[in-house]
Amino acid sequence: MRPVYVVAAAVAPFGKQPDRSAPELGGSAAGNLLRGIGLSPDSVEAGFVGSVYGGSLLAQRVLQRAGISGPPVFTVENACASSGAAAHLAWQAIAAGVYDCVLVAGAENLTAFGSGALPLTSADVEVDQGQVMPAAYAMRAQRYLHETGATVADLTNVTVKNRGNGARNPRAHFQKEVTAADAGASRLVADPLRLMHCCPNTDGAAAVLLTSEGFARDLGTPRTLIRASVIRSGRFHTSFRDMTWPEITERSAKAAYDMAGLGPADLDVVELHDAFAIAELLHAEALGLADRGTAHRAVAGGEFHRDGRVAVSPSGGLLSRGHPVGATGASQLAEAYWQLTGAAGALQVPGAQVALAHTTGGGIYGVDNGACSIHILTAQD
Amino acid sequence: MRPVYVVAAAVAPFGKQPDRSAPELGGSAAGNLLRGIGLSPDSVEAGFVGSVYGGSLLAQRVLQRAGISGPPVFTVENACASSGAAAHLAWQAIAAGVYDCVLVAGAENLTAFGSGALPLTSADVEVDQGQVMPAAYAMRAQRYLHETGATVADLTNVTVKNRGNGARNPRAHFQKEVTAADAGASRLVADPLRLMHCCPNTDGAAAVLLTSEGFARDLGTPRTLIRASVIRSGRFHTSFRDMTWPEITERSAKAAYDMAGLGPADLDVVELHDAFAIAELLHAEALGLADRGTAHRAVAGGEFHRDGRVAVSPSGGLLSRGHPVGATGASQLAEAYWQLTGAAGALQVPGAQVALAHTTGGGIYGVDNGACSIHILTAQD
Repeated sequence: MRPVYVVAAAVAPFGKQPDRSAPELGGSAAGNLLRGIGLSPDSVEAGFVGSVYGGSLLAQRVLQRAGISGPPVFTVENACASSGAAAHLAWQAIAAGVYDCVLVAGAENLTAFGSGALPLTSADVEVDQGQVMPAAYAMRAQRYLHETGATVADLTNVTVKNRGNGARNPRAHFQKEVTAADAGASRLVADPLRLMHCCPNTDGAAAVLLTSEGFARDLGTPRTLIRASVIRSGRFHTSFRDMTWPEITERSAKAAYDMAGLGPADLDVVELHDAFAIAELLHAEALGLADRGTAHRAVAGGEFHRDGRVAVSPSGGLLSRGHPVGATGASQLAEAYWQLTGAAGALQVPGAQVALAHTTGGGIYGVDNGACSIHILTAQD
Repeated sequence: MRPVYVVAAAVAPFGKQPDRSAPELGGSAAGNLLRGIGLSPDSVEAGFVGSVYGGSLLAQRVLQRAGISGPPVFTVENACASSGAAAHLAWQAIAAGVYDCVLVAGAENLTAFGSGALPLTSADVEVDQGQVMPAAYAMRAQRYLHETGATVADLTNVTVKNRGNGARNPRAHFQKEVTAADAGASRLVADPLRLMHCCPNTDGAAAVLLTSEGFARDLGTPRTLIRASVIRSGRFHTSFRDMTWPEITERSAKAAYDMAGLGPADLDVVELHDAFAIAELLHAEALGLADRGTAHRAVAGGEFHRDGRVAVSPSGGLLSRGHPVGATGASQLAEAYWQLTGAAGALQVPGAQVALAHTTGGGIYGVDNGACSIHILTAQD
């Protein structure tokens, strides 16, 4: 397999944009990416677009708006890991020597649903009984607090950290710091999660360009090497599920660390799937960033801050940037790319050399999560 | 790139099955495939499931019902070419040496929509103005009749041929021959297309197993070699569109013939995307099975019959089998597999050595078609 590089990234600013469709948002990100590096759309040999709710032929609709018309393109769905999955397929095709230049995008317009929890399929027994994502994560939070001795203040610490990071990110849905008091005063969504412990419903899109080494060299833009690209699906079981342990994240991370020849201690930046504040604690532990049951103490001790041991979601994470589900994976790769190329501006983690991007989702039908994608990128070859 | 084989196939019978969801239909096809060859679900290293309307995480829902739980799985969308696209991605991954055994499936439950034309996105200008698929194909038919001198009787010839083939296919939605008089008496849908010139809305699923040479040898089932696997997307343009020429089919076919080192004259069996009777004429010409403007004469002359020059849709095609959109591509590969392994029973084309499967779709937003998939398979290595 050949080395594969991320050589460019663009994000259509995240936020409430009810008058911009998913194709329009995605087309904006893809078009801005190509214009930003002066690359002809005809140089793009294939496209993979991740989306959950974007509808039929979204890949065509997105890419044609960027002038890409005719090559193999695919709309890929894997719940919140949709554009992580799209990136994985693009990576695989380039690594295999099939293509040299592939555009990956993710796009979603969630305001089309109005507001509230994501619409899930009532064919799932648990959904049919009223289960929604905030409730699923609230149960996980209750159990985590019970098991570890953490308190709601520990959840709030995640929010305060990530909203503080997001305040520096011009691409974030929320660009405003919040205090612990603000979070505590926000309305209760699903006990113990308050509004500020939950990511918002957001419209947005992101795009990254993946290329072979030769193509990257000719293009001449700053580049980062994809050291690992892993997708896994959830293991179905009807017996006891430990809500405090996202087994799929642990399993995917192990495969990614093996592929990269790197471990948690090597990471400078982690863009992690903090759809809810509790998710950062659970996934940080499953990624090996803290021992089990201790991530809340790592947050409280500043270890996950931008200037801490490992910067977790220096972009602000989903809690700040928002979570246009199908776009999130690509946007994390974009944030990692900017960090590793020293282009992260006010968000820059000094000297960042290794970044991990993690998305996971779709977790309420007999599996911990439906899908998980993990990418590990390095600044140097 | 390594050779890739189709080594097993299964179809969940096509028809109106309002009480069977897409996951249930797909799970049935995938499960039957594995049981039919006695393969452990754990041997399947990845899964690609094509669907248009199946919803989030359909791949997981389908494959878990067949016992496949944990590996990389992807839901792939490309309109009617969705499971053709899924097969392409599976083929590519095996050809590249990433996997040795990948399950491909397609599943769709169209009765969920009630009846009538497929629901399309009103974000498309043409759809917003009332355009639907039967109307799009009716316009193509009108123009084709005008340009070539063909008549409605020529459209009916396609229906009579394909319904005659389908009458032998136990997996078809319609298993009953019809006469020209029957077709002429069926109600007008969109002039000149009558009901029997249109494929029905059908529920169904199909699965095929793709493997490397070594895996195929160990498994020991009859196998067919994938000589070409091609996906293309439509070229967007706002200028004149020649409705009688599916440029995407011609372009995809040329790439497939080049890849296979074979041409139209080598084909024994073609499973073609006859969503409407006119589509067989248009696509047969674009595939090079007849000179432009003459496919109606080839049908009238028996050249596309099961015992003719090239058997076009000996399975009965979409007109008989029905068109559960995301499942159609995989079901065509299944029919081709059975033909090339001599397992097609009453449908068998004697001595079939080379088969082509073609799906295309999503054709009404500034492109001839949104996507096209073509696979060429041979009985011998």
